[in-house]
Amino acid sequence: MPVTLINVFSVPAAKEPEFVQWWQGVKEHITKQEGFISGTFHNSIKAESRFNFINVAIWENEEVYWKAYETSVTPMKAKLGELGVEMTPALYRVAFEY
Amino acid sequence: MPVTLINVFSVPAAKEPEFVQWWQGVKEHITKQEGFISGTFHNSIKAESRFNFINVAIWENEEVYWKAYETSVTPMKAKLGELGVEMTPALYRVAFEY
Repeated sequence: MPVTLINVFSVPAAKEPEFVQWWQGVKEHITKQEGFISGTFHNSIKAESRFNFINVAIWENEEVYWKAYETSVTPMKAKLGELGVEMTPALYRVAFEY
Repeated sequence: MPVTLINVFSVPAAKEPEFVQWWQGVKEHITKQEGFISGTFHNSIKAESRFNFINVAIWENEEVYWKAYETSVTPMKAKLGELGVEMTPALYRVAFEY
């Protein structure tokens, strides 16, 4: 059963360009992982929004997601720490569409 | 240009059933608004996730969203206060899909 990773980011304004550029490489890595289906990367319209970037990605199941997570979490956390980015990721089920 | 509302909720565990039931009515209201395109309501797989519900809804443009917001914000905030729910909504653009 597919799962949705929603990753909520608070990125310091001064670091936004570097964060977005870094994400291009993250995206390249993610799309090569087994079980990845698709993703949408959102940027808040108002610069001052608490969560100024949100990533929504669909994976085939929880197991493939966690396998991909293991290959990327260490360098990802290092970079986010360097940029002062707060990240809150979690896996979700679609409760309903409307 | 379409905009995406992402609304991140922290719902106390004991209030989850009531929150989900209340959302059925919210959904009915939203889908009747002019300019609403579609929505996806997510529930975290792990009960202890910081944001245990996330709503992602697509609207035709910012203007129609704010018009709909005005019709629903007052009763919505009252109910969320009663349930002890913390909500962080913001409008987003899709930066890229992958």
